[in-house]
Amino acid sequence: MKRGFASDNNAGVHPEILQAIAEANQGHAVGYGDDKWCDEAKAAFRKEFGDDTDVYFVFNGTGANVLSIQTMLRSYEAVLCATTAHIYVDECGAPDKMTGSKLIAIPTEDGKLTPELVKPYLHGFDFEHHSQPKMISITQVTELGTIYSVEEIKALADLAHEYDMYLHVDGARIANAAAALNLPFRAFTRDAGVDVVSFGGTKNGMLSGEAVLFFNPELSKAAKYYRKQSAQLFSKMRFVGAQFVRYFQDDLWKKMAAHSNEMAQLLADKVRDIPEISITQEPIANGVFAIVLPELIAPLQEAFFFYIWDKNRSEVRWMTSFDTQPEDIEQFVATIKKLLNEKK
Amino acid sequence: MKRGFASDNNAGVHPEILQAIAEANQGHAVGYGDDKWCDEAKAAFRKEFGDDTDVYFVFNGTGANVLSIQTMLRSYEAVLCATTAHIYVDECGAPDKMTGSKLIAIPTEDGKLTPELVKPYLHGFDFEHHSQPKMISITQVTELGTIYSVEEIKALADLAHEYDMYLHVDGARIANAAAALNLPFRAFTRDAGVDVVSFGGTKNGMLSGEAVLFFNPELSKAAKYYRKQSAQLFSKMRFVGAQFVRYFQDDLWKKMAAHSNEMAQLLADKVRDIPEISITQEPIANGVFAIVLPELIAPLQEAFFFYIWDKNRSEVRWMTSFDTQPEDIEQFVATIKKLLNEKK
Amino acid sequence: MKRGFASDNNAGVHPEILQAIAEANQGHAVGYGDDKWCDEAKAAFRKEFGDDTDVYFVFNGTGANVLSIQTMLRSYEAVLCATTAHIYVDECGAPDKMTGSKLIAIPTEDGKLTPELVKPYLHGFDFEHHSQPKMISITQVTELGTIYSVEEIKALADLAHEYDMYLHVDGARIANAAAALNLPFRAFTRDAGVDVVSFGGTKNGMLSGEAVLFFNPELSKAAKYYRKQSAQLFSKMRFVGAQFVRYFQDDLWKKMAAHSNEMAQLLADKVRDIPEISITQEPIANGVFAIVLPELIAPLQEAFFFYIWDKNRSEVRWMTSFDTQPEDIEQFVATIKKLLNEKK
Amino acid sequence: MKRGFASDNNAGVHPEILQAIAEANQGHAVGYGDDKWCDEAKAAFRKEFGDDTDVYFVFNGTGANVLSIQTMLRSYEAVLCATTAHIYVDECGAPDKMTGSKLIAIPTEDGKLTPELVKPYLHGFDFEHHSQPKMISITQVTELGTIYSVEEIKALADLAHEYDMYLHVDGARIANAAAALNLPFRAFTRDAGVDVVSFGGTKNGMLSGEAVLFFNPELSKAAKYYRKQSAQLFSKMRFVGAQFVRYFQDDLWKKMAAHSNEMAQLLADKVRDIPEISITQEPIANGVFAIVLPELIAPLQEAFFFYIWDKNRSEVRWMTSFDTQPEDIEQFVATIKKLLNEKK
Repeated sequence: MKRGFASDNNAGVHPEILQAIAEANQGHAVGYGDDKWCDEAKAAFRKEFGDDTDVYFVFNGTGANVLSIQTMLRSYEAVLCATTAHIYVDECGAPDKMTGSKLIAIPTEDGKLTPELVKPYLHGFDFEHHSQPKMISITQVTELGTIYSVEEIKALADLAHEYDMYLHVDGARIANAAAALNLPFRAFTRDAGVDVVSFGGTKNGMLSGEAVLFFNPELSKAAKYYRKQSAQLFSKMRFVGAQFVRYFQDDLWKKMAAHSNEMAQLLADKVRDIPEISITQEPIANGVFAIVLPELIAPLQEAFFFYIWDKNRSEVRWMTSFDTQPEDIEQFVATIKKLLNEKK
Repeated sequence: MKRGFASDNNAGVHPEILQAIAEANQGHAVGYGDDKWCDEAKAAFRKEFGDDTDVYFVFNGTGANVLSIQTMLRSYEAVLCATTAHIYVDECGAPDKMTGSKLIAIPTEDGKLTPELVKPYLHGFDFEHHSQPKMISITQVTELGTIYSVEEIKALADLAHEYDMYLHVDGARIANAAAALNLPFRAFTRDAGVDVVSFGGTKNGMLSGEAVLFFNPELSKAAKYYRKQSAQLFSKMRFVGAQFVRYFQDDLWKKMAAHSNEMAQLLADKVRDIPEISITQEPIANGVFAIVLPELIAPLQEAFFFYIWDKNRSEVRWMTSFDTQPEDIEQFVATIKKLLNEKK
Repeated sequence: MKRGFASDNNAGVHPEILQAIAEANQGHAVGYGDDKWCDEAKAAFRKEFGDDTDVYFVFNGTGANVLSIQTMLRSYEAVLCATTAHIYVDECGAPDKMTGSKLIAIPTEDGKLTPELVKPYLHGFDFEHHSQPKMISITQVTELGTIYSVEEIKALADLAHEYDMYLHVDGARIANAAAALNLPFRAFTRDAGVDVVSFGGTKNGMLSGEAVLFFNPELSKAAKYYRKQSAQLFSKMRFVGAQFVRYFQDDLWKKMAAHSNEMAQLLADKVRDIPEISITQEPIANGVFAIVLPELIAPLQEAFFFYIWDKNRSEVRWMTSFDTQPEDIEQFVATIKKLLNEKK
Repeated sequence: MKRGFASDNNAGVHPEILQAIAEANQGHAVGYGDDKWCDEAKAAFRKEFGDDTDVYFVFNGTGANVLSIQTMLRSYEAVLCATTAHIYVDECGAPDKMTGSKLIAIPTEDGKLTPELVKPYLHGFDFEHHSQPKMISITQVTELGTIYSVEEIKALADLAHEYDMYLHVDGARIANAAAALNLPFRAFTRDAGVDVVSFGGTKNGMLSGEAVLFFNPELSKAAKYYRKQSAQLFSKMRFVGAQFVRYFQDDLWKKMAAHSNEMAQLLADKVRDIPEISITQEPIANGVFAIVLPELIAPLQEAFFFYIWDKNRSEVRWMTSFDTQPEDIEQFVATIKKLLNEKK
């Protein structure tokens, strides 16, 4: 299928990641993570995030989020998140059911929580009729394409810790955030006070594989059991390990993410002057949100696959990925212009 | 690592399966299963199991079992299984927690349930104090290396249906069973009355990927939601689809499974006459169970990785896999003999 | 303790209800609801709500709400409710955990959902990434003391049924609503299209005991199992049955609820002209919400127990109950006036 | 209904317990346990079980067992119990679903676990594929009418603690055990090493009400939340408190339980010499188990309600209760003799 702008998970696997899988396919390896590739991958994570980072590989983002919550909270404790959070709207209630914890959604303007938005929800502590707030969960890059600054994360972490709560980052697109911020991962996670990260790889050129990173090993002792009990333990786990080894080697993750971000920038630049298109959110990472002429959408989708974001506003979301090429964008924009001309 | 006899999941991926993954890595594909590889893979399953087979790809065996139970049962309904069943002992309580259903374990001699063993548990129907028996779950090949015949499965299916219950097969090693029985898959599943199958691929040369097969689409309408809510939905699912396409092509699955079974036979034949070794279960599929001289175990494990099955009896389990070579067995047996000689 | 205005569940038991318990205390009765008192109580419910009403007694309101949801929904289906709903804020996440279903909270002005408020949440049907909206749950009397009219309920029921969803009423104070509306129960529940009711008795003069009423027996077949599995099955259930028998006899429920409502009216009338008090919601049922001088609250609470509703606004909630006496209100208002005078 | 021998929960409420409820029915009391009756009842429990006993009132036995497990275990931890345990067979899977923990059932001869029976299940620690054994749960009096001695309980507690596990007692009939052993409660619970008790009152003359007793307050900090989240929090809780206050006053519990036990003894004595009846378990507490002539059962059940225990063996269970009178037994035995004579 032609490369489109539907989602970064419509892209395939970076060839060197695939090569790493092939290279790991020799002889036997003990199952369930007790192999040299997983050891090496964990070392790579520890190099990025600190020596005592406790790393658990899981299958997918939902699995990572569920494991993060389940390990750190008990079922009467609640998670505060944005109403747009993936854990709240896009996981079919997996966190609710698998953890038993309540997810309390907070409306935001731009997908980003702030201390001001969170504070009104910090009450009822010690009152058994209320689910006890215990975690703030943010998404970085957010579902609306926005990015938290280090200071913004610090402020949320400070607030969380003041109330004996944890700060979780759903990092399905954490590499795009790191590239956009031009910061090492730990600068805007661990060093900013984050307690646990769902670290995504699949959306940035991996075949499959995410990791949960706990920064306080005291709090992650139960993680291995919850991973297994949540059906997130991979038997031939060396193939996840091998992917992550290559992902970190030579900062491949960064090359992919930075490229993807640049492509979004390029796309935005190319459509900015088309009067029938109005960008609603300047791209910081790898997504362009725009309001377009309603009649344009269907014919354009036939040529290039992408999703409508908000039907009522005629807003669409165009995602770029590690493999998006400038010519994809040229063709896409040319098609837009051609379709608009035909309308006239 | 040297090829050992620990588990068929210590093996890697069949090169042609890996090749299929590489070939699927072109351009973009819609995520979550709506792609041509998954379509083709589903068609391959339907060719084997019947046109209206409802197929759901999941990450691992535990995920497959959980999805099978959750889709067909409600939480007050119970699953009857053997005390040795993987769902009962090796999934850290994932089925119990994720489905809410009770697992009732029945002792067996050889890992195989029979109508006579099951019948005493078929009571309390309509009595709200008791979990309502609703599913019999069997493993084929069993965890003890034994295999159900078509007639044995039919008898269990008839019993299940007489009580308005379902018969589930945990087919983590279903290919080894098909090869050993020399029967098409459907002969000992659907045609024998089975209602739902956890169809395993990972233990027989795939990288990762299992499927749940429902034979009555009326009963599987909720499966897609439960798969997502159980964190078993793969975004780049084309890579699971591509594996299964190749798996069925030219009966690759059968070549791998038959080879694996033959290697177990060869291993058994080679050790049969060693007096310090006593085979406890003649290999029908790809596992050899044997009682060995206790002092032999540790030094042998150093040379070839394998697991102790029952420490008290000094019983070990040696699993062969699609990639086991006759020379691996030669070396293994030679090592055994050498170690035994040294003891004398 | 002196009668206060904290909650209708701070009141005791109506003497005639207690008498009914005592009268049921003779000889033996089969446990778990298979007794003449429960039969008679169910008949009383069927007289009110229709002959085929399926009635399940449970311990408390949370149990009733959990049973309602669990019986009618599967875990991937969602409940839409107001952000102020008891199931959302006051049950420590019991519905979330015990049913696995997602609760989606909708902001309202006055605790009441409307079709306009609900419609934006009716999307994502058939899309497995989203919890599937399947139930609208309203509270009658609402947690803010407001009441839905028959027409308002009909509109919500029509909307629900248009989308193949159910309408649930959390009727913890349903008797107060019936008295305020001066309508038979079924006029604003079953006849208005409601599918299932949590029918409360405890807050209106009973010792303990609520009932779940299903109006479509096809949908409640599993209820008896879920009640048991949710630990809501009472062994000496005749004592719940006996309470409800008396509750319906001579419309005792209505006398209690109407009296309670009148007392709230009386209280509102008495404080209406005090300039330091501003009623925020005219009492329709048995609650008075008012903004009062902040300094008044603590000393007044010492004399009469009640709760602060919204600390930021200095808003309090005064609940009356079946046993509130006009002289309680006289004393209460006199104390208010005395305290205000002292401040001057 | 005539007094029968079906279950001690077919009896009503002791008149003085009912009187205590009536006396507590004055004025208002803060809901949810913050009242003087609950305070006094907790003090009574602490007098029996030790000053730092942490006491939680719940609705029923299933609720008590669920709260015990849920507070002390996490979902990947397992409970070991007898195959005859109420939590395993008579709670419709409530513990499994509400706690997520696996229940592993161990066959016994007489309903009693022993260290020898338990030890084979104590393996797989630290191995994430297995549910981690964390609690031994015993029933006292057992479901088969047998009683653990202090030494037997100590042995199980020692074993549990050696493995960093807990010992739980399901004490639905704990009063009958105390009366039969002629020991204070704590002698065979806390002082014998028990960590948590489900303390039953309903089966021994109360209307409704059980308590969970934790002997290590460090381990019960979450209990209040789990109680609420499990829908076991009673709003007008003073009426449970009042029952327990009276229950302990003047050792009313003991008078009731001892009487009930004596009546079982009397019944056994009266039928011992009837050749068509063979007692299978000499009554120690308040149950008589006997094999009777199959033809006798149906006509006898018409006259006096009781349950068949094991249909295959024609074994019945006759339970006595606090209100069983010697003349009930006379009539019962006379009816047996008359029916047997008619058969001849």
